[in-house]
Amino acid sequence: MDLQFIATAQEQVRRQRPLVHNITNLVVTNIVANALLAIGASPVMAYAKEEVADVASVSAALALNMGTLDERVVEAMEIAAKAANSKGVPIIFDPVGVGFTAYRNEVATRLINQYELTVVRGNAAEIGYLVGAGGTVKGVDSIDAGDDLTERMLQYAKVQNCVMIATGAIDYVTDGDHVWALHNGDELLGSITGSGCMLTGVIGAFIGVQPRFASRAQIAKASIAAITSYNVAGELAVLASKGPGTLQSKLFDELYHQQGESLVLRGRVEQLY
Amino acid sequence: MDLQFIATAQEQVRRQRPLVHNITNLVVTNIVANALLAIGASPVMAYAKEEVADVASVSAALALNMGTLDERVVEAMEIAAKAANSKGVPIIFDPVGVGFTAYRNEVATRLINQYELTVVRGNAAEIGYLVGAGGTVKGVDSIDAGDDLTERMLQYAKVQNCVMIATGAIDYVTDGDHVWALHNGDELLGSITGSGCMLTGVIGAFIGVQPRFASRAQIAKASIAAITSYNVAGELAVLASKGPGTLQSKLFDELYHQQGESLVLRGRVEQLY
Amino acid sequence: MDLQFIATAQEQVRRQRPLVHNITNLVVTNIVANALLAIGASPVMAYAKEEVADVASVSAALALNMGTLDERVVEAMEIAAKAANSKGVPIIFDPVGVGFTAYRNEVATRLINQYELTVVRGNAAEIGYLVGAGGTVKGVDSIDAGDDLTERMLQYAKVQNCVMIATGAIDYVTDGDHVWALHNGDELLGSITGSGCMLTGVIGAFIGVQPRFASRAQIAKASIAAITSYNVAGELAVLASKGPGTLQSKLFDELYHQQGESLVLRGRVEQLY
Repeated sequence: MDLQFIATAQEQVRRQRPLVHNITNLVVTNIVANALLAIGASPVMAYAKEEVADVASVSAALALNMGTLDERVVEAMEIAAKAANSKGVPIIFDPVGVGFTAYRNEVATRLINQYELTVVRGNAAEIGYLVGAGGTVKGVDSIDAGDDLTERMLQYAKVQNCVMIATGAIDYVTDGDHVWALHNGDELLGSITGSGCMLTGVIGAFIGVQPRFASRAQIAKASIAAITSYNVAGELAVLASKGPGTLQSKLFDELYHQQGESLVLRGRVEQLY
Repeated sequence: MDLQFIATAQEQVRRQRPLVHNITNLVVTNIVANALLAIGASPVMAYAKEEVADVASVSAALALNMGTLDERVVEAMEIAAKAANSKGVPIIFDPVGVGFTAYRNEVATRLINQYELTVVRGNAAEIGYLVGAGGTVKGVDSIDAGDDLTERMLQYAKVQNCVMIATGAIDYVTDGDHVWALHNGDELLGSITGSGCMLTGVIGAFIGVQPRFASRAQIAKASIAAITSYNVAGELAVLASKGPGTLQSKLFDELYHQQGESLVLRGRVEQLY
Repeated sequence: MDLQFIATAQEQVRRQRPLVHNITNLVVTNIVANALLAIGASPVMAYAKEEVADVASVSAALALNMGTLDERVVEAMEIAAKAANSKGVPIIFDPVGVGFTAYRNEVATRLINQYELTVVRGNAAEIGYLVGAGGTVKGVDSIDAGDDLTERMLQYAKVQNCVMIATGAIDYVTDGDHVWALHNGDELLGSITGSGCMLTGVIGAFIGVQPRFASRAQIAKASIAAITSYNVAGELAVLASKGPGTLQSKLFDELYHQQGESLVLRGRVEQLY
C-alpha cells in the first residue's frame, strides 16, 4: 500500500493548523492539548454550556471523550454535538470505559443514537462492547476483545454511517466497506495514561482538514494517517526513552519533529478486506 | 528489620494489577494515574455520582483526596465511600489542606466520622491537625508538626481503627499498636506538586492486594511497603534528574523498572515502638 | 537599564515563599502549580465557593485564569476577587480566549468592571480585544494584534488603574505612564500548552512579595522581573531540550536552579516611553 497519503495528510495538518474543540476528561486535558500543539494543530478545550455551541461551530473538528463524565459534561457534549452536526463539523467520539458502568453505557448509547458521529474510536474491549462482539472492560483498560470484532465493526460502521476504530496491539479501522489493520506502535505507550485519548484528539485534527461531508472512505484514510503518524512517533519516542515518564516527554518531541519520509518508511498498513 | 516483604508486596501489585478507584484533585489526576500505571496497577478516575458506587464496589481500593473540593466532589466521595464500606473495599483518605480552611475541616471530619477509613495519610501538619498535635498548615504545604505527633497518631489510630500515616522528611506509620519511622525519600520530591497525592494512590494499590478485612498490622505493613517502594524510586529518580521537571519524568521510569533487590537494599524502616 | 532589580525580586520570592491562590483552568492546573513550586513560591489551587474567600484572604496574591470557564468557576472567581479586594490582596487576571466567544467576553468584562485588578495579562490578540486595538483571536491562540496596541494599552491601564501586559514574540508591559518592551523568550514555548498561564501564576508570585497597595510603577517592575525571569529560564530550557515535550520538563529545572547573575546578563528590557 502506498503510504505517501500519510505524509501528505500530516503536512496538511501543519499547514492548515485546524482548530480542534475537545471536550475531554480531567485526566488528560493537558496532554491532549500538547499532542495537538505538537502536530501543528490548534487545540481549544471548552466545557461551558454557555459557549460550547459557539466553539464547536467554528472548529474544524469536535472530539468528545467520556473518560470522566458528569451530568454537566454530558450536557455540554450534547450541545456541542448538535451545533457541530448542524454546521457539518466532523465529530470523533471516544467512549472511554463503555461497558464498565451502566452510566457510561447510557451516555455512549445516547450520543451514538442522537448525533451523527464521524468516527468512533476506543480500545478493543470498548468497541467490542459497542458492536456486540463481547470482550471485557476493566476500569478504563481493555482486557480482551471478542473473536469476530472486525466483522461486527464493519457492519456497525455501515449501519451507523461512521468510521469505527479499535486500537490495541493491532489497530483496526473500518469504513463499513473495508477493514484495515495497522501494525505500528509500542506496548509501552499503554503505560502512559491517556495514550488513547491523545490519539483521539490527533485523529480529530486529521479529519478536521478533510473537506466537509467527506466520504467514509476519505475519513478512514485520514484516520489511518493519524494513527500511523501517532504510532510511528510513539515507536521513535520509545527508542529515545527509558520508561513511561521520559516516553511521555519524548512523544511530544517526536510528534513535533516528525518527517514525512520516516512515516512512509516505517508505516505498516494492511488492508484486510 | 527484614525488608523482603516490601519486594513481595510490590511484586504482588504487578501480578494482580489491582483496580484503584481515585476521586482525587484536579491538580494531580494525570500524575496519580501515571504513578499507578507505572507500578503495574490499574487506575480508574471516576467522579460522577451516577457511577461512583458501581466503580468503588468492584475496585480493589478507593482513594479519596480532598485537594480541590467542591460540593459535587464531596457528594461523590460519600457515595463511593458508602459503597466501598458495604463491600469491604479498603479506603485511603488524603485530607489535603485540612486545618487550612473551615470547609476542609468540616469535610475531613465528616468523612472520618461517617465512614470506615482503612488508612489516613497526610503531611505532618495535616495529620497533626487531625490528631490534635498542633502544627501549622499553610495552603497545602506542611510547615511544621507538633512534638507529640507520633504518640497522638497512635492513640488516634487505635480509637478510629485505622492506619495513620504522616509523611515528611521522615515518614511515620502507626497501626495503633506500633509506630514505624521510614527514612527513604528526597527533599526534591517536595518540589513536584502532588508527590504526596501520588503516594496516596500507590498506597491504595498496595492495600488493594491485601485480603479483605486485613488486620491493621497487615495494612500498616502494606503501607510501609508502598511508601518505601515509592520513596526509593524517588531517590533513584533524583540521582537521574537535574531538577523538579526531569524528576517528575524519571520518577515514573524508576517506578516502572523497580527491582525487588534494590528495595530490600535501600529500604530504611525503623520500628520506634 | 539596570536589571539587578530582577535578580532581587526573584530572590525575594524564594525567601518569602508567597502563597499564591490560583483559580485557573483544567488544562494547566498541574503545571501552574509546578511552575510556582519551581520558583520557590507556594501554590494553592482552591475552587469551592465555600472556601475561596478564606483562601484568597490569606494569600499573597490571587491569580484568575478563565481558560475553561463554567458558571461555578465564575462564581468562585467573584467571591475570591471580592475577598482579595477587601484585604488588599493583589489580583492578576488572565482573560484566556477573550474575543473568541460571547461568554468569555461577558465574563472578562464583568471581572474587569466589578473588581480592582492589579494586573491583566494575555496574549497580544486577547489584550488587543480588551483595549479595542483589534486583532484576531482563534481559539485560545493569538493570531495577530492591531498596530496601535501599546498606545491603547497605556490608556487602558491609566483608566483602569492597573498594569497591562501583552505577551508574544515581544512582551509589552505598561503601568499607564510608561511602556516597556521585553525581548526574552523563545518561540518554542508557544508549543507547550499553558506557557502563558504558567507565566500568569509566576507574575502572581512576584507581585505577591510587593508591599500591599504598591504603586502601579512598582507592580510593573515586579511584572517585568517575573516575565524576564520566566523567559530567560525558557531560553535556557530550549537550549537543553529537543522539542516541546522535553522543554516542559527542562523549564521547571531551569526555574528551580535560576541564578541571579544569569538573569542580569541575559535580560533584555527596553523602555519604549
